Amino acid sequence: MVQMRKWRPLLKLDDDPPRASYRKIAEGLVTAIVEGRLPPGTLLPGTREMAQLLDVNRTPKHLPGHALQSFAPSILAQPVVPYFTHNAQVTALRHRHDALFFDNGTSDHRLLPQAVLHRYYRNALRNSFASNTLRYGSEGTGYHLRCALAEMLRSNRGLAVNADNICLTQGTQMSLYLSAGLLIKPGDVVLVERLSYPPAWEIFRQLGAQLVTVDMDEEGCRTDQIDRLCQQHKVRMIYVTPHHQFPTTVSLHAARRQHLLTLAALHDFCIIEEDYDHEFHFNGRPYLPLASDRSQRHVIYIGSLSKALGSTFRCSYVVAPAQVAEALRRNAALMLGDADAVAQKMLADLINEGELKKHLRRVSKEYRVRRETLQTCLHASLGDRIQVREPEGGLALWVRFEDGIDVDRMVKTALGHGLVVRSGRQFSPTGQPENALRLGFASLNQAEIREATLRLAQAANAIERD
Amino acid sequence: MVQMRKWRPLLKLDDDPPRASYRKIAEGLVTAIVEGRLPPGTLLPGTREMAQLLDVNRTPKHLPGHALQSFAPSILAQPVVPYFTHNAQVTALRHRHDALFFDNGTSDHRLLPQAVLHRYYRNALRNSFASNTLRYGSEGTGYHLRCALAEMLRSNRGLAVNADNICLTQGTQMSLYLSAGLLIKPGDVVLVERLSYPPAWEIFRQLGAQLVTVDMDEEGCRTDQIDRLCQQHKVRMIYVTPHHQFPTTVSLHAARRQHLLTLAALHDFCIIEEDYDHEFHFNGRPYLPLASDRSQRHVIYIGSLSKALGSTFRCSYVVAPAQVAEALRRNAALMLGDADAVAQKMLADLINEGELKKHLRRVSKEYRVRRETLQTCLHASLGDRIQVREPEGGLALWVRFEDGIDVDRMVKTALGHGLVVRSGRQFSPTGQPENALRLGFASLNQAEIREATLRLAQAANAIERD
Repeated sequence: MVQMRKWRPLLKLDDDPPRASYRKIAEGLVTAIVEGRLPPGTLLPGTREMAQLLDVNRTPKHLPGHALQSFAPSILAQPVVPYFTHNAQVTALRHRHDALFFDNGTSDHRLLPQAVLHRYYRNALRNSFASNTLRYGSEGTGYHLRCALAEMLRSNRGLAVNADNICLTQGTQMSLYLSAGLLIKPGDVVLVERLSYPPAWEIFRQLGAQLVTVDMDEEGCRTDQIDRLCQQHKVRMIYVTPHHQFPTTVSLHAARRQHLLTLAALHDFCIIEEDYDHEFHFNGRPYLPLASDRSQRHVIYIGSLSKALGSTFRCSYVVAPAQVAEALRRNAALMLGDADAVAQKMLADLINEGELKKHLRRVSKEYRVRRETLQTCLHASLGDRIQVREPEGGLALWVRFEDGIDVDRMVKTALGHGLVVRSGRQFSPTGQPENALRLGFASLNQAEIREATLRLAQAANAIERD
Repeated sequence: MVQMRKWRPLLKLDDDPPRASYRKIAEGLVTAIVEGRLPPGTLLPGTREMAQLLDVNRTPKHLPGHALQSFAPSILAQPVVPYFTHNAQVTALRHRHDALFFDNGTSDHRLLPQAVLHRYYRNALRNSFASNTLRYGSEGTGYHLRCALAEMLRSNRGLAVNADNICLTQGTQMSLYLSAGLLIKPGDVVLVERLSYPPAWEIFRQLGAQLVTVDMDEEGCRTDQIDRLCQQHKVRMIYVTPHHQFPTTVSLHAARRQHLLTLAALHDFCIIEEDYDHEFHFNGRPYLPLASDRSQRHVIYIGSLSKALGSTFRCSYVVAPAQVAEALRRNAALMLGDADAVAQKMLADLINEGELKKHLRRVSKEYRVRRETLQTCLHASLGDRIQVREPEGGLALWVRFEDGIDVDRMVKTALGHGLVVRSGRQFSPTGQPENALRLGFASLNQAEIREATLRLAQAANAIERD
């Protein structure tokens, strides 16, 4: 520090107007040399001292990342595959004050019980301090959360599981990544439905899978085709969302469920059953998951709390036989290390003390009303130009448009009216056009649903007039 | 539900003592048949109705996971490699009330500013509700956190970076996983120091790397050996912790730093520089990271907030050239999906509003005192049977034992005295014995340090007597 005291006044670092520190030093040195304050032979500060000057000065802002802009490219092992369509227009609309979004079926975070969450966070934080869970990591809290989830799955979904059957993850994406990673070898054939969930395919493809599509009808995926495909290929696994098919909302018919399980046993393939919105089933009681079948040995089940609690809580889980769940937990730890002990404690408490259930009861009523509002508005605005599927549950409607309306064009036009909605085409693994939309209704209140539907109709009218 | 009303009294589900629901139903059916309440030809409830009965009843607890215990094993693509040594004895000691742990250098969560964290959480939660960040995901909050970290890294660590150079992850483990995943192809040679960080090797090995070790001395890793190894192998990368070498605490000497950078450029290998406890440097000012060198093009830098804030905050980051950071962000999203927007907002605020810095100033003073206490206690209890390295920083001491004391035996004996400490052998990628211990001092207060050192000395005495 003695050295530093010499340099700072010499370079006049303190009384300059705000500039990047490295410029201050460079310019200070030049000026000092020009003005004769730095005689020939002076030992200049080294890089470490320079850094100390930078740090003492505390004003370096917005330095260009020049040193890091370039990188020896030969050292990258993988080419990077883009996997989400980043739509600049959509991003731009996020800044439009009155923009509305028909998402894929997100829940409404505005309905979350803020005061309850706040109270549980404080309590979990206090408890962690007292019981040293922060120090000893998430081993204990993770176990408690797995117990709470197992209890919930036993009593609400008929799954004969305990904590050993559960692997906690940071979200559905990670659940899929881990499960598929344990199953897929490069070249393996993976079946997906003709319309399905894009981030899942990206994972399967990155793992080297060959995707083969299966058709669907009003009873869900065509299990007769699966049988035929299994005779042509050695099928490793199928990825399905049987409760409310994503994106078409169809609930897999009971006979098809049984057939699918039989085929899995016969051809020895694994079923990844993603039950992303089990909680929201409006017509009758929820179906039991495929994984609840007592004789099955081929299902890996993925659930999540994110539809119930939103992205504040990064909590998804994989349910599998104990030895598979253990393998998943090990790989999860290898990938992520320790988890957030406070969040885990908080979630376990919310489940065990009935707050999650209470919240779900409350929002389900509201979502049912919103679904009716969207149905009414769609029929009023678009009439017989559309066919709206009445789903048994889930937080979105699947809407087919008559051939006269080009959905891809309508979606682009809607952006101009301040409405973001994604074309049905995005749900096709092979990029086939699909003249339909998936309209999530849960994250919009009734007034927003009315306005969003109006904008959609305006877009439809605009392209019809062209 | 009308159907259900018929079955529940018939099977006497309500007035039985607590049993698993499936047993109630099975036994209820048997009894009803035996008692003639179920005449031949009665249509029994199907599986779905059974589930409704189960759910209505709400008492199924501790069902054995029989259906999921077994699994068709042929569908697993990978054998699972164990990577952490689960020590049953250590786990058992966690329940001993007065157990003490010399960890690897964890910070003390008891020193965290609880009230501040609580306030920032509430504020972040409120803000997220108001600004819709929960709905639109972590794109915005992630960017703000990256900006806050970039500003911190520019002003404290001399890194010429902005938000584009940063990839956020859920912890150091994930940072290593992502970085190594982008670099390593199966068969690649990866250099690690002779003593190093086990979870890192496990990741490298899982990616198919061939690990080759480099020796170390009092100036850090032997760069002359690296040069020779690069002539024998095509080296893909080296993994180093130059600020305070893990586990030996040595700070890499200035000349060696320069040599390492020169070799990386010459032989075109990547340096993964993990700077896990940059904040805690007690003797003089922290060294600048290798990544701060303006002409380097071969360093990927990994930092973390977990030493500063504990495992409550799962936040690590990778700093790399913009195109590499973008690739890392994409792979992180592929693996994890969206991040926790509330936690990100909270962390960005804690950094931007100076709370992190304030906390670090406060705890650094305390940790310095604890380090002195540990040094004093070790000299008093173990005298000339040990050599204690005085490190320039970090939250642990590296202690060598004279040959007469077998550290492996001492560690086992210490467990009996209620002290957990890990043998130096665990830090050797090749499992070589190492008659030394890494003793973290930050998570123990002064009284605990005194007691823990006493127990260590007791264990040393016990094995000497044998």
